[in-house]
Amino acid sequence: MAENFEISTQHREELVDITPQVESLVRKSGIQDGLVNVYAQGATSAIMIQENWDESVQTDVVDLLRKIIPQGAWLHDQQDGNGDAHLKAGLVGPGESIPIIDGHMGLSRWQNIFFCEFDGPRDIRRIVCTLIST
Amino acid sequence: MAENFEISTQHREELVDITPQVESLVRKSGIQDGLVNVYAQGATSAIMIQENWDESVQTDVVDLLRKIIPQGAWLHDQQDGNGDAHLKAGLVGPGESIPIIDGHMGLSRWQNIFFCEFDGPRDIRRIVCTLIST
Amino acid sequence: MAENFEISTQHREELVDITPQVESLVRKSGIQDGLVNVYAQGATSAIMIQENWDESVQTDVVDLLRKIIPQGAWLHDQQDGNGDAHLKAGLVGPGESIPIIDGHMGLSRWQNIFFCEFDGPRDIRRIVCTLIST
Repeated sequence: MAENFEISTQHREELVDITPQVESLVRKSGIQDGLVNVYAQGATSAIMIQENWDESVQTDVVDLLRKIIPQGAWLHDQQDGNGDAHLKAGLVGPGESIPIIDGHMGLSRWQNIFFCEFDGPRDIRRIVCTLIST
Repeated sequence: MAENFEISTQHREELVDITPQVESLVRKSGIQDGLVNVYAQGATSAIMIQENWDESVQTDVVDLLRKIIPQGAWLHDQQDGNGDAHLKAGLVGPGESIPIIDGHMGLSRWQNIFFCEFDGPRDIRRIVCTLIST
Repeated sequence: MAENFEISTQHREELVDITPQVESLVRKSGIQDGLVNVYAQGATSAIMIQENWDESVQTDVVDLLRKIIPQGAWLHDQQDGNGDAHLKAGLVGPGESIPIIDGHMGLSRWQNIFFCEFDGPRDIRRIVCTLIST
């Protein structure tokens, strides 16, 4: 079963916690044991599992990626100026698969699911959740 | 159902678009909704989802990884001189899982599947596609 | 079917080969063809596929990540001093999915499964293996 949801983003680069939306789809599916694959449909976005105690780690992720992959230094910038966004998206990756255990996601206490925006703001970003029962 | 295919690579480091081969296996499987896991069997290669409008992003990926992970600077180079290739492979990762929606891969317009060669050229590189119906 | 196992870690940062434990669960499951998802429950740990001929690549991985993501340079360090560990975990990622072919994992000769510790030592680290038959 595949279920989609959409979000909007407010900044060029930001992390948006989408754990509640995914957990809601897991519950709705009724699956007790299995896997949920969370997939970002967009070549300048990604999915990262990360802590959400406060905004510090999210800010650190954006800063780290800016440092490793600076803006404006890439061949692809001649096309549409977002070479860094593509590289960040490729390195982090578009998806993560998370265990479903007893009807809930098997995340640990400090693991949340983040949509990573690298070329925003965007009105619509689509995330596909594929739910598989074992 | 697992299906393999093989490719050859021409350079030490390059990205090879394997989207057509994977899409063909998805169609052949007849699966309407599910997941396809694309897995590179090789500890100096990887799978990355990336744009393929032209070759600029692919070249940028090779350049970025060369900059972050320079050749010849690693302990493992004393074994077989490809320490950088192993590090690149580990960081990018050997596999990606992509949703199957209505019989086709749920890639967005600018998402293609690339085999990443980090220690080529090689006559044979094997990719395993595992197709799962939900 | 989800199966857990636990390991302990000895250093702040290290890679621990968990291939035997995962292979044992695959064999126990009786699954001939499918997928095993290996997932680290911890926001300062990760899973990486990497060579295990000797300890050189494992040491190189720790050194590379220390160089890219230095300790003590992050906003999150003000909370609990492990900002670098969260960033390393997010970049490498908590999970990998590996094909099951003819009852065994479809790893190539030099691919092993490593648990990556970035904020140890820890008495208990839990890994969840989700086994899916195709």
